Order: sequence, then structure tokens, then C-alpha cells
Amino acid sequence: MSRESSTNQPKYLRIAAELRAILERGDYAPGDRLPGENTLAADFGVASLTMRQALGLLRGEGLVGSRKGSGWYVEDFRPIRRRGIPRLARDQWGSGRTIWSADDDRSPDVDQVTVTEEAAVPQHIAEVLDLAENETVCVRSRRYVMENRPVMLAASYLPQVLVAGSAITEANPGPGGIYARLADLGHAPTRFREEIRVRMPSGEEVARLSIPADRSVIKLARTAFDSEGRAVEVNEMTMDSAAYVLDYEFDA
Amino acid sequence: MSRESSTNQPKYLRIAAELRAILERGDYAPGDRLPGENTLAADFGVASLTMRQALGLLRGEGLVGSRKGSGWYVEDFRPIRRRGIPRLARDQWGSGRTIWSADDDRSPDVDQVTVTEEAAVPQHIAEVLDLAENETVCVRSRRYVMENRPVMLAASYLPQVLVAGSAITEANPGPGGIYARLADLGHAPTRFREEIRVRMPSGEEVARLSIPADRSVIKLARTAFDSEGRAVEVNEMTMDSAAYVLDYEFDA
Repeated sequence: MSRESSTNQPKYLRIAAELRAILERGDYAPGDRLPGENTLAADFGVASLTMRQALGLLRGEGLVGSRKGSGWYVEDFRPIRRRGIPRLARDQWGSGRTIWSADDDRSPDVDQVTVTEEAAVPQHIAEVLDLAENETVCVRSRRYVMENRPVMLAASYLPQVLVAGSAITEANPGPGGIYARLADLGHAPTRFREEIRVRMPSGEEVARLSIPADRSVIKLARTAFDSEGRAVEVNEMTMDSAAYVLDYEFDA
Repeated sequence: MSRESSTNQPKYLRIAAELRAILERGDYAPGDRLPGENTLAADFGVASLTMRQALGLLRGEGLVGSRKGSGWYVEDFRPIRRRGIPRLARDQWGSGRTIWSADDDRSPDVDQVTVTEEAAVPQHIAEVLDLAENETVCVRSRRYVMENRPVMLAASYLPQVLVAGSAITEANPGPGGIYARLADLGHAPTRFREEIRVRMPSGEEVARLSIPADRSVIKLARTAFDSEGRAVEVNEMTMDSAAYVLDYEFDA
């Protein structure tokens, strides 16, 4: 540790950083039990309460978990790599080595889906979709799970006038999903904007994602534009921040 | 509030969500003082301690701040919009309306910079740069500030063998920055990968970014590849998560 980091900083942050480095180095395997709190506290030379604060912080990050009666263990969930931009020719340009390890091969599944027509949508959504007053919207709400663990909530908003009568208003929009249906309707998305920010979860997000209340969520809002520049969909995603590595690859 | 969110959830999360909605609606102007904790607690019908927990959570998100002796106020710092992919022709394709408001026009300034040659770099960096054992690296560390507020730390790693003797090893790399110098050296970046994840700050990051210890940071690792697919730089950024909206725009 550098001198700068050990002065005037809460001790549990320093301990958490040291334990994080040990975990990221791979000294323990995923799923391994950690030594008991008192043993760890003695090893790090701090009080048990400080040790527990540090462990709680790393739980918030998704690096460790705890089970009642059996202490702390190394989280064995491997983050999902979400590729924002589909890549066509990976082998042509790079080693493929990535900075952070994450799961490239699996995608989460939808375990909950509701489709409703709604008149009241959040103001920031209404503005981007350029809705008239009282114009209704088709809202597709989904929850995604991987290995029985909820990892993301997503709500797509589409102007009802655009999608009424199409399979977009059904739970199953058919082959190719809603973008294929938008293409059928003459509004194929040709460009996307993704906006990312981080905040703490709401109570509902804590419940639906089954995450600790002190774990932040990633809010990712994806806007799809058709060839005329019209915003045809906003998909507001809420991700367990410990479950994802976001990945964007693009030419200079 | 839906029924789901009000059952079995910590009360402060519900209160924080309600206050967040009020703030995002714009009922208070940036910089406005909020009513006192006891008044707020009475308004929301909760204990003062619960109110303080909710306010603390929103401080972690950067929505409110507190000043000693004068209570809570609405944070007046406007997040910076960081565009991952330079956009050449904005007017051609969209309304320009974005989901989250953020500052499009300003970029943060560097207020600290050090350049060193180092033999020990983190293993995940060494792997991506495909370093030989004991191969040294040029490390450019910077801190970025906006309105006197630190918003980002960045550390760029470049193989020393590639950059030795060039202005990349100087504090000021000259016009066009290090990418222009890499081009001079025959290694112009032609493709980028950006990887994003979220975690809690280290003590050193808390100190250098002047953020609350419970505010998460965004880790953004940018790898630059030259035309032969060689990784020529990794830039590991650590952002105050309350200070940034990340933005990626791309064709379907």
C-alpha cells in the first residue's frame, strides 16, 4: 500500500482493497470458504467489526457472499460480458484478450415478461420518443436471469401508434424479436444510442434483482432510431452491477 | 409506489426512491437547500434516523450534498457526458434528445500528471499488452478535474520498447496527444475496446477523487489496437460514478 492510501482513510477501505487484491489474484477459487471473521481480522491486524465492514463492502461488489451459519465464501458467479456493438469479424483485429474476465458465451434468459399499454410514462422517456400529450405507449417489461440468479430488469417503451396490432404487443414478438417486427413495420432501427449511469437500487429493484441494498445498479438506456432519425424505442435496463462487464468495440 | 416495493424492504430505500423522484422531477433547483432533516422526516412520516439514511444514500449517488452546520442541499454539479465513440455527423440521424441530462459541452482538465517507467504492472494489464517477463512499461497517470472537482483518475500503460525516446514519455506529449505520437511511430490506433464495470472505491481513490467512501466508481479500461491487431495502450480510468454519463452511439 502506498503511504497516501493509509493516512486518514477509513481502515475498512484499506482492508477491503487488500482482500480484493488477494481475491483478484486468484488465491482462492470461486466458491471457496474464507477463513472465519476472527481469523481474518487477526491476519489483517484489525478489529472484527472492521473486518466485517470490509467484507460487507466486497459483498456489495459481488466478490464475496455469506451464508447463514457457514460464514463467508468467494462468489462463484462469473460476470456476463455484454457486447454493446455486435462484432462481425473479431479475429481480424485483435488478440481477443480482455482486461476483465467475464463470460463471453452465455446470455441470460427471460423469466418474467409483461406487455401493457400505458398512458403515463416517465417524462424523460416521453421526451425522447417525442410523444404527444396522452399518447399511449407499449411497455414491454422483462426480467433476465442466469443460473437462477436475476441479473437485469428491462423495460422497453414504443409508441403504441407505431406497434398496435403487431406481435410487438405480444409476450412473444416472434423470430428476430421486436427489431425484426419494427423492420416489418417500415421502422427498422438503423442507429442506436446507449447511455450508462450508476445509482443505488430502489426497494423494488432490490427485491426483483435479489441484491443487497448497498449494491449499486447500472442504468443503461438504449434508444433505437429508424432511418429517418425517429426514436422508435427506448429500452431502460437496470443491471446488478456485480453481474456485468459492459464491452464496446469500435474503429478509430 | 407499487405494493411489491413497500413490503419487506428497508424503509430508507423507499424514502430515498421517493426523494430521488422529487429531485429528478426538478421540484428543487440545483444548489437549493432542502428542508431540515426533522422537517423532511415528518413530511415522509419516518424517523429522523431513517431520513438520514435515505439522504446518505442519495449523497452516495451524488444527488444531494451536505455542508456542516447548514444541512442538506441539492447537488449542483451536472454530470459530464463522455462520448465513447466520436460522432461525426450528429444532425444526420437523430433528434439529439438524450435520456439523461448531462453536460455535452465541457471536458475535464488534467490537474495532475506523472510519467514513469515501471517494471511491475498489474497482471491483467501485462497480459493484454502481451509483455515479456520483466519488460518495462511507460505509465502515464493523470487526474482530471471539472469546476475544481476531481472527477476521474486515469493510468495509461504503453510498452516502453514502443515509446522510448518519444514525447509519449514526456508529461506533455505534444499536439494530438499520445495517439498522434503513436501514429508517428507507425502504431496509430485503428480500433478500440472499452470495458466497463462498477466497484467500490479504494481508500486511495476516495482520497484522490474526494468522494464519499460509499460512492461506487466506474472502472473503464480502454485498449487501443494498431492496424496489425497489436494492443499498444491500455488506459484504465476510475470515474466518480456520480460525475459521468457514458454515451455510445453506433450504427445497427
